[in-house]
Amino acid sequence: MENTFTAGVIGAGRMGKIHIENIIHNIPNLKLKLVADIKIDDNLEKWAYEIGVPKLTQDPIEILNDSEINVVIIASSTDTHTKFIQEAAQAKKDIFCEKPIDTDLKRIKETLEIVKKEGVKLMIGFNRRFDRNFKRVREMVTSGQIGTPYIIKVTARDPAPPSIEYIKTSGGMLFDMTIHDWDMARFQVGSEIEEVYTSGAVLVDPEIGKAGDIDTAVVILKFKNGVIGMIDNSRQAVYGYDQRVEVFGSKGCVIADNEPSNTVRLYTAEKIKEDNIPYFFLQRYMDSYAAELQDFLECLRNNKEPSPNGEDGFQNVVIAIAAQKSYEENRPVKISEIVI
Amino acid sequence: MENTFTAGVIGAGRMGKIHIENIIHNIPNLKLKLVADIKIDDNLEKWAYEIGVPKLTQDPIEILNDSEINVVIIASSTDTHTKFIQEAAQAKKDIFCEKPIDTDLKRIKETLEIVKKEGVKLMIGFNRRFDRNFKRVREMVTSGQIGTPYIIKVTARDPAPPSIEYIKTSGGMLFDMTIHDWDMARFQVGSEIEEVYTSGAVLVDPEIGKAGDIDTAVVILKFKNGVIGMIDNSRQAVYGYDQRVEVFGSKGCVIADNEPSNTVRLYTAEKIKEDNIPYFFLQRYMDSYAAELQDFLECLRNNKEPSPNGEDGFQNVVIAIAAQKSYEENRPVKISEIVI
Amino acid sequence: MENTFTAGVIGAGRMGKIHIENIIHNIPNLKLKLVADIKIDDNLEKWAYEIGVPKLTQDPIEILNDSEINVVIIASSTDTHTKFIQEAAQAKKDIFCEKPIDTDLKRIKETLEIVKKEGVKLMIGFNRRFDRNFKRVREMVTSGQIGTPYIIKVTARDPAPPSIEYIKTSGGMLFDMTIHDWDMARFQVGSEIEEVYTSGAVLVDPEIGKAGDIDTAVVILKFKNGVIGMIDNSRQAVYGYDQRVEVFGSKGCVIADNEPSNTVRLYTAEKIKEDNIPYFFLQRYMDSYAAELQDFLECLRNNKEPSPNGEDGFQNVVIAIAAQKSYEENRPVKISEIVI
Amino acid sequence: MENTFTAGVIGAGRMGKIHIENIIHNIPNLKLKLVADIKIDDNLEKWAYEIGVPKLTQDPIEILNDSEINVVIIASSTDTHTKFIQEAAQAKKDIFCEKPIDTDLKRIKETLEIVKKEGVKLMIGFNRRFDRNFKRVREMVTSGQIGTPYIIKVTARDPAPPSIEYIKTSGGMLFDMTIHDWDMARFQVGSEIEEVYTSGAVLVDPEIGKAGDIDTAVVILKFKNGVIGMIDNSRQAVYGYDQRVEVFGSKGCVIADNEPSNTVRLYTAEKIKEDNIPYFFLQRYMDSYAAELQDFLECLRNNKEPSPNGEDGFQNVVIAIAAQKSYEENRPVKISEIVI
Repeated sequence: MENTFTAGVIGAGRMGKIHIENIIHNIPNLKLKLVADIKIDDNLEKWAYEIGVPKLTQDPIEILNDSEINVVIIASSTDTHTKFIQEAAQAKKDIFCEKPIDTDLKRIKETLEIVKKEGVKLMIGFNRRFDRNFKRVREMVTSGQIGTPYIIKVTARDPAPPSIEYIKTSGGMLFDMTIHDWDMARFQVGSEIEEVYTSGAVLVDPEIGKAGDIDTAVVILKFKNGVIGMIDNSRQAVYGYDQRVEVFGSKGCVIADNEPSNTVRLYTAEKIKEDNIPYFFLQRYMDSYAAELQDFLECLRNNKEPSPNGEDGFQNVVIAIAAQKSYEENRPVKISEIVI
Repeated sequence: MENTFTAGVIGAGRMGKIHIENIIHNIPNLKLKLVADIKIDDNLEKWAYEIGVPKLTQDPIEILNDSEINVVIIASSTDTHTKFIQEAAQAKKDIFCEKPIDTDLKRIKETLEIVKKEGVKLMIGFNRRFDRNFKRVREMVTSGQIGTPYIIKVTARDPAPPSIEYIKTSGGMLFDMTIHDWDMARFQVGSEIEEVYTSGAVLVDPEIGKAGDIDTAVVILKFKNGVIGMIDNSRQAVYGYDQRVEVFGSKGCVIADNEPSNTVRLYTAEKIKEDNIPYFFLQRYMDSYAAELQDFLECLRNNKEPSPNGEDGFQNVVIAIAAQKSYEENRPVKISEIVI
Repeated sequence: MENTFTAGVIGAGRMGKIHIENIIHNIPNLKLKLVADIKIDDNLEKWAYEIGVPKLTQDPIEILNDSEINVVIIASSTDTHTKFIQEAAQAKKDIFCEKPIDTDLKRIKETLEIVKKEGVKLMIGFNRRFDRNFKRVREMVTSGQIGTPYIIKVTARDPAPPSIEYIKTSGGMLFDMTIHDWDMARFQVGSEIEEVYTSGAVLVDPEIGKAGDIDTAVVILKFKNGVIGMIDNSRQAVYGYDQRVEVFGSKGCVIADNEPSNTVRLYTAEKIKEDNIPYFFLQRYMDSYAAELQDFLECLRNNKEPSPNGEDGFQNVVIAIAAQKSYEENRPVKISEIVI
Repeated sequence: MENTFTAGVIGAGRMGKIHIENIIHNIPNLKLKLVADIKIDDNLEKWAYEIGVPKLTQDPIEILNDSEINVVIIASSTDTHTKFIQEAAQAKKDIFCEKPIDTDLKRIKETLEIVKKEGVKLMIGFNRRFDRNFKRVREMVTSGQIGTPYIIKVTARDPAPPSIEYIKTSGGMLFDMTIHDWDMARFQVGSEIEEVYTSGAVLVDPEIGKAGDIDTAVVILKFKNGVIGMIDNSRQAVYGYDQRVEVFGSKGCVIADNEPSNTVRLYTAEKIKEDNIPYFFLQRYMDSYAAELQDFLECLRNNKEPSPNGEDGFQNVVIAIAAQKSYEENRPVKISEIVI
C-alpha cells in the first residue's frame, strides 16, 4: 500500500532514541525495520529490546541497501549528516535529518543538489515549527488575523548551560541554539532575512567565555518584507526552559506564552504561587517531535515539499554565519555578504 | 441649574468618610454643604478641616431643614436609617442610604411607603454592583452573550474576621456579609429568589460560634426564572479579599476574577510568584463607591429609578431572614414563608 | 520477574479501547495477552490487528482461566461488573474495574467481601484523581499548604448532553456524572461525607426532563471533618469541557483551572481572544487513564491498597443514592439514611 | 510648617491640566496658588473655575515673583523649559519639569549647572517610573530577587499615531516616544548605557516616512554593567496601549504585563474573550502622574535627590541623539561619540 512507510534510523543517541520511540508508539503508519549506530553496547541493546526495536546494526549501509526501507531518519553526529543524506538520496530514499545539516555551506549546497537530482524529499528537524502553540501562531498569521506583520519576537532561554566540553564542539551558541530562533522567525514571517545584528555577552559563566563562546545573545533581524525580528537567548534561565513567540502586525498581536506545568494556583498569606514552567526541551517539545515525523509522512503521501526543507536548513546556517560575523565585528551584516 | 446637587451627609464614621471624600474629590457636580455626626471630637474636626468639609454639626435636623440641600446621604448606624430616610423623604430630599436599610421588615416597609408617597428617590448602598468587573459581567449577561443564565456563582471571603464585639452586634454573617452576595446574584440574574438553602459552620474561630454566629457559609438560591445560585463565604481568607462572580448560561460563561494588585510575575528557580490580591474592600471597591454616587446623581438628573433601590434593600433583608431560618432548621426555605 | 504483569481486558468498547491503547503504547511493564468482547465484528478485528492486540475472544472465561494473566481489566457494561469482579477475584487475579461498580448497594457489598476474602486488589476507575492538576491540588492539601480545609468546590460541565437514549439508561445525571465530583471532593478532603443536599433543574433540554432526568445540578456536601463541599454540573457548556477544582482552607486556597488548548493569545482591535478549552474528556483526561493504570501497577508491586478502591466505589454510589433522594424530597439527606 | 508646599503651574495644556487636577484632588500637602498660560481663553477659564484653580495669569513671572510659591511645575512647550527652569532656580524654587528638558545638549547642561548652583531640586517627568507595576519590578530587581540582571526588555506601542503635524514638530519617534523606554531601562538596570543600535522602519503609514520620521523602532542597548537592553516601539497597536517590561537575571525573571481593563473572561462556543487593554496613557498612567508629584514632595521634605532628576533628563536626550545617529548610519553608536 503506497501509504505505508518503512523506516531505518541512523544514530541511536538522544535524538535518535526520541524518534525511535515515537515511531514505535505514536506513528502507526511508519514501520521501524532497522536501527544503525556505530557503538552498540549492552545499554543500547537492552533499551532496544525493551522498546521493541526489531533489529540493531553497526553498519548504516545495511539501511541504505534495504530495498524495503523507504524512509531514512538521520540522527547521527552532525559531521556525518551530509554523507548519509547523499547516500540515502542516491538509494532513492526519502530523508528526515536532524538539524543542522552541516556547518560548511559548500558541503550543504552540494548535498542539496544531489537530493534535488535524485528527486527525494528532505525534511530538516527544526521541530519547534510543530509545537502546538507556535503552529497556532503561524495559523493566525497566515489567516490574516494580525494583518501585515511588523515585528516578530522570539525568546529562547535554556534552563542550564551544557558542559564546557559540549560548548567547545557545538559550533557556538549562535549555531547551536539561536539557529532555532531565526528558523522560528522565518517560519512565522514567511520571508527571508536580509540583515542581522548580534549583541552578545558572557554573563552566565566566565568559563564559557574562555571556551570562546558567549552565553547571552540578542539578535536583530531585518526581513525582505520589512519585518523586524528580535531574538533573545540565554544559556541559563534558572526558572526553566523559556520559549515564547510574539508576532505584532497591522491588525493585532499574537503571543504564545510558555506552556505551564499545570494549571494550579496556590494563594497564600504571602504570595500567589504557581509551579515552574517545564524544565527543558524533552518536556516542552516531546509532542512536536512526533508531529514533525507525522507531517513528514503527510508530505511523502501527498508529494508535498516538506517544511522545513533542505533550503531552510541551508538558510539557517547562512544566517548563523552572518550573525557570528556581526557579533565579532559589532556591526549589522547583510546576508548577501556571506558567500560560499 | 437643575443638574447641580447639594449634599448633606448624616454620619461621619468609616462609610460616611468614604462618601465625603468622594464628594469632595471625585464628584464635581455634587456640592457638600453640611456633615452631621452625633459625636464630634478633635480627630473628626481635624480630618474635616484638612479634607475641606465646609461645616460640621451634631444635629442632623440642620441638614433636613436646609432648603439648599437636596441630597441626603445616610451613613449613620443601622438603627437610625429608617428614621432619617423618613424625615429626609418628608423634607422632599432624595436619599442615598447605606445598607442594610434596617433588620425589621415592617419598619422597612413603612419607610418605603413614605418614600413612595413623598415621591423622592432612594438608593441603597450595595456598592458592588458598581465594581467595574461585576458591572461588565452584567452588561454581558443583558446583551445576551451567555444566552439564558443557568447558574450564578458568587465567592466572597473577607481577609480576617471582625472583632467578636462587632460580630455580636452585626446581626450575624448572613445579614452582614452574605447580604451583598444575593444582592449581586439578583443583580446579575435579573430575577427574584424563590427559595434559599444555607449550610453554615464555625471553622475559622470557635469564639465566633460562642458569640452565636457562623464564620463559613454556603448558600443555594433558586430563582423564579429557574436559575440556581451558589454563594460561598468565609470570614477569613488569609490571602486577601476574595471577590469573584461567575454566570453560566446556554451560550457561554462569564467569569470575573479577583483584581490583581499589579501585573508583575516573578519567575524563580523555585516557583512563579505574584503579589497577593488587594487586602480588603477599601482597596478593591474604592472606585465603586464613587461610581454608585455618580450613578445616583444620573438617576436624579434623568428621573430614573435607582438600582439598587429601596425594594432591593427590602428583598435582601427578606432573603437574609430566610437564609438564617434555613441554617437554623437545616432545610430549604421558601421566601414566601417569610411574612411581615 | 515479580514486577511484570500480564493483562486480560474484558470489554472493548470506548473505555476498553482506551485502556488497551494505553497498555500497548504507554505501559511497558504491563503485557496485554487477551481481550474479550461479547461482540466481535470486522471493525473491532481491524482495530485490534492494527494496534497490536495479540488475541481477541468472545469468551471472558478464557481470561479468567489463563494462569499467566494476573491482572484483569473490566470495562464491560456496568451490569456485568460485579460478576466479573467476583470471578476474577476467585481466580486470584488483581482487578481494575471501570466506574461505577454497580448501582445496587447489596451486590457491591457482597462483591467487595469476596474481593477481601480472596485477598486480591481492586481499583475503581475514577480517573480524575490522576489528572496532573487535581493530583497537584491534593499534594498541596496533604502537605499542609492551605492548612485545614474549609470549603471544596468542584465544577464539572460537559460540552454537550448525551443522547436521550443514553440518558434513559444512564441511571441519571447524579449517578453518571456527579458521581465523579464527590469522588473528587472525597479525594481532596480526605474525609467522608455525612450529608448531601441537591438542587437540580431541567434548563438545557426539556427532552431530558421528559426522560426523567435533570441536566443541571448543584450539590452541597457536609463532610465529617466539617468541610463544606459545593458541586455544580451541567450537561451542556457550549465552550467546552469545564473541569475545575478549588480547595479553600485556613492557610490559603488552591485552584486548578481548566487546561488550556494552547498558550496563544490574540490581541485585536476588538477583543483579546484565546482558543477554547479542550472539548471533552478524551482530550482533557487521556493522560490520566494511563496514569491510573500505572498507579495500579505500583500498588500491586508494593502491595499497597489502591486508591480509589472498592470502598470508594461503594461510597460514591451511596452518595449518589442520597443525592437523588435529596433532589426528589428537596431536603438535605444524611448518608446514614441510606441503608442496604 | 516646613512640610507644606505651595505650587505655581506654568502651562495649562494637556499635561499641565493633569498636574493641576492631581494637585487639587489627590495631593493634600501641595496647595495650588497660581496657574500661568500664555493663552487664556473661555474654555480654560471655565475649566479652571469648575475645578477650583484659585487664579489664572498670562504672565509666568507672577509665579516666579510670588514668594509664597516654593514649587514650580513646568508643563509649557518644550522650547521654553530651560528658560523657566533657570528662572525658577534663580528664584530659589524647587522645580518639576515635564520631559524632555530640551533637545539641545548644551542648553540642558547650562541649565543643570544653574540648578546646581542655586541648590534647588529638579525632577523630570518620566512618569512611568511611578507606575505601580514597573515600580514593583524595580523593587524586585533591587531586592535581589532576580539576581544579577542580564537582559531588560521594554515594549511600548501607542494605539494610534499622532497627527502628521505633531510628528513634524515632535523631534522624531526616538526623541518623543522611545526616550521613555531607555529611561525605563536605565531605571530598572541602575547603570548607564554605553552603546545603542537602532533598527527603524516605516511600516504603519508612509505619510510618517514622508514627514521624515519612522513609525516602528527596535533598539538594542549595551549597559556599562554588561546588561543588554531591547526596546520595541510602534506608533500603532490597534489593540491598545501596549506597555510591558521584563528583566531577566541570574536568579530569575520578572515580567510586568499590561494592565487589564477588567478581570472579566467570556467563554463562548467560539472563543474565550477578554476586553482590550486600556487604550492610551491617560487610562494606563493616570495614577503615576499623581505618584510622581507625591514622590517629588517626599524628596523636598527629606532633602533627597529626585529620581528621575536633571541628569536623567540629560542622559535620555544624549541617548536619543545616539539612537538617531545609529538609525541614520545603520551601525551601533557609542554614547561617548555624542559630544556637546
